[in-house]
Amino acid sequence: MTTPAFAPITPEILRQLQEILGSARVSVARADLDLHARDQSHHHAALAEVVVWPTEAEQVAAVLKLANAQHIAVTPWGVGTGLEGNAIPLHGGILMSFEQMDKILKVHADDFQVTVQPGIGHKDLNAQVARYGLFFPPDPGANASIGGMLANNAAGIRTVKYGATKDNVLRMQVALANGTLIQVGSRSIKQSSGYDLLHLFVGSEGTLGVITEATLKLTPIAAYMSAVVVAFESVAAAIETVVAVRGSGLDPAALEFVDAAHCKMLSTAENVDLDEKPTLFMEFHAASQPALEYGLEMVREICVEMGALSVKATSDPTERKQLWYARHASYEILTRNSPGIEYFINDVAVPLSAYPAMVGFIEDVKAEYKLTAYMIGHAGDGNIHVDIPFTDQASYDQALHINGLIVRKALSLEGTSTGEHGVGIGKTQFMVEEHGAALDTMRLLKHSLDPNGILNPGKVFPD
Amino acid sequence: MTTPAFAPITPEILRQLQEILGSARVSVARADLDLHARDQSHHHAALAEVVVWPTEAEQVAAVLKLANAQHIAVTPWGVGTGLEGNAIPLHGGILMSFEQMDKILKVHADDFQVTVQPGIGHKDLNAQVARYGLFFPPDPGANASIGGMLANNAAGIRTVKYGATKDNVLRMQVALANGTLIQVGSRSIKQSSGYDLLHLFVGSEGTLGVITEATLKLTPIAAYMSAVVVAFESVAAAIETVVAVRGSGLDPAALEFVDAAHCKMLSTAENVDLDEKPTLFMEFHAASQPALEYGLEMVREICVEMGALSVKATSDPTERKQLWYARHASYEILTRNSPGIEYFINDVAVPLSAYPAMVGFIEDVKAEYKLTAYMIGHAGDGNIHVDIPFTDQASYDQALHINGLIVRKALSLEGTSTGEHGVGIGKTQFMVEEHGAALDTMRLLKHSLDPNGILNPGKVFPD
Repeated sequence: MTTPAFAPITPEILRQLQEILGSARVSVARADLDLHARDQSHHHAALAEVVVWPTEAEQVAAVLKLANAQHIAVTPWGVGTGLEGNAIPLHGGILMSFEQMDKILKVHADDFQVTVQPGIGHKDLNAQVARYGLFFPPDPGANASIGGMLANNAAGIRTVKYGATKDNVLRMQVALANGTLIQVGSRSIKQSSGYDLLHLFVGSEGTLGVITEATLKLTPIAAYMSAVVVAFESVAAAIETVVAVRGSGLDPAALEFVDAAHCKMLSTAENVDLDEKPTLFMEFHAASQPALEYGLEMVREICVEMGALSVKATSDPTERKQLWYARHASYEILTRNSPGIEYFINDVAVPLSAYPAMVGFIEDVKAEYKLTAYMIGHAGDGNIHVDIPFTDQASYDQALHINGLIVRKALSLEGTSTGEHGVGIGKTQFMVEEHGAALDTMRLLKHSLDPNGILNPGKVFPD
Repeated sequence: MTTPAFAPITPEILRQLQEILGSARVSVARADLDLHARDQSHHHAALAEVVVWPTEAEQVAAVLKLANAQHIAVTPWGVGTGLEGNAIPLHGGILMSFEQMDKILKVHADDFQVTVQPGIGHKDLNAQVARYGLFFPPDPGANASIGGMLANNAAGIRTVKYGATKDNVLRMQVALANGTLIQVGSRSIKQSSGYDLLHLFVGSEGTLGVITEATLKLTPIAAYMSAVVVAFESVAAAIETVVAVRGSGLDPAALEFVDAAHCKMLSTAENVDLDEKPTLFMEFHAASQPALEYGLEMVREICVEMGALSVKATSDPTERKQLWYARHASYEILTRNSPGIEYFINDVAVPLSAYPAMVGFIEDVKAEYKLTAYMIGHAGDGNIHVDIPFTDQASYDQALHINGLIVRKALSLEGTSTGEHGVGIGKTQFMVEEHGAALDTMRLLKHSLDPNGILNPGKVFPD
């Protein structure tokens, strides 16, 4: 997709933006541009020409209408926790921040739903809906905005039971490039009416339209939870256990893999005691204590049968948090242990049966490049992250190269170049290989919905 | 969407179809046209000009390429169990039957997946994968083809736990109108790469492309199941119980509503003993007997607390089937009791909190029109069906009118015109009201992907 030439922000455009938004919500101050120039990834910063903070959908629509007529690039921004440069304003223009559209509009407690503005952080949302005994399950770690999570189809640790963001949204209001506001999806849980525009916009990274409101599914907070940490001699044994646990019908709420090297490194932290072995972290949710306890027994039996070296299991809330601490704090412990080192975070996913082959390939790459890289993954759904260290341009280039090797291996195993971080800037180069002729269909849809290419240009498609 | 003028099937076109498919798989025999002229709905029959039976994706693509170049209508056909005229060849042309593309291509047991051709019936599929302890959960009742279920986003009784068809598919091969074959989705459970074309084609009723292969998610067959049948004084009390049960985290596998009139009628059958009261049928799945039993106790307590008039509950397999018999055989019992009467099956869905208002409205309509109509619904996800009797043109017209009243009420309650039967022919008239400006976006996508409008013309969009 050849990037179109965009028009610059002129004083007249600024005046029109101020008319739409009020002058306090339009800024060309360098400090504001800098604050919206990069996300939490390794991607280079890029400056927008102006930052705007809409407070309502109609303002979003009016800004898009103006930008579309004038051929000005618009990049939507949630809170900047992206990991693939998804919200970096590569082509300048307007950075549309949702930081001031962060309200809960309505809690539909009896419907297990909540309607929110896109700028609200998922942790802030969960703090508010906890009083109803409900939560929004997708959890990418950082306090990402709901709009950003929807745009990237974020996932996280509990996807194996509760699904990714795309599985937890029912309805959205979307502003199209031409400034039309549409409603997609329904507050009805079931809908077989017309095309599923909802899921077309979810995961489209702001390149097809801009999400201005969302009604999310909420889930009852589990009354009882348990934790299990199990070490294995081999990755194959660990993954056979994943298959057996899932096959048992126990429906784990989290099923995480940490490789031997990472376990060793994590054990440098206080109160962490892991064997230097491929290790699974599991969590189970139940509606009653007996169901939880009986499930724990079943898991223990499965693990022993599969040759587990050690099984630590608990349904005690305090012990559970302690057992999971190493997993939850893994990135924090990693960075604390790595002064002067940055990490390139790889994100691929493969069918479960290909997980051992994927991990084995990464081990081989690590050996070949003499790398101290760490693997951590959502094994329950085949997702894996490799934290590849770099300290300078040469090692950064090497990390990029290794990332490419891992992505291409994942694709050869019928996997995907990105399980949960999105395409952003970094994965555009793999889109032809991953999607083949379907990429032309994606381009067709992009051209239909955004003929001037103003929406988040430079993302998703290779130029 | 103005329906384009289609070209007729000429001897030359027939010759080309025979070249693509072999002469045994092309028929203009009246008997074959008749067999593919109507589904299980009340919609009028329409004859195609030729029926073709492809056996592989490349043939599907070649037929579409030909039809697209010649402007010939193509209507895909699964097995004819649709309930909204979705596969009736309204504009003649080519009826593309998938009856000979009914193979399981590969069982990926360790991935909990199966790859199939679209013509296989879901019951036939389930009979084959049961040996792995797995099943494909969506169950619309009839032995619908997987392709038809995908095209209409079919659902059924167990959607409340396991989701609709859209939630149980990972990857598809699709033939586009121009004859290009594309792959959409991934065998990886998680994918945040590019646009979600998978869900754009699912539920598009064959109007955007033709599904030629699908990789489906399979689920472990529950080791333990229970059944609960509960009568209430009011619909409101029944729905409060639905909310309480879902809120408890017990995660029901089925949560069905049957209205008082229907319970009375069902009790005319042998071995059915229901009170003439709003009644819930529930099913629970568990990985262990203790979890099941403890869950049953919780359900019983909730029902009593909500003022249940009677609670029948069992975890015994034989008793369970007996308890559910009235629900499973409801349509059979209805038709057996109604010689000379046909039923117009309405299908709407609303947010759970609006269910009592929806049922109340239908009661009012029944009273106003002095109708003996029956309500039965998937209450757990807000879906409701009304079986509206008709015997002649006048009562058929009245049923159509009443259907319109019910649909418009559902839309006013933030619901949908169709929860699981699809738009087909019958719901096109409600699309503007349901989708507003989003319908223009759907038209735009239709025009992009099928510029000549050859794919299943007359469906989804009002003319």
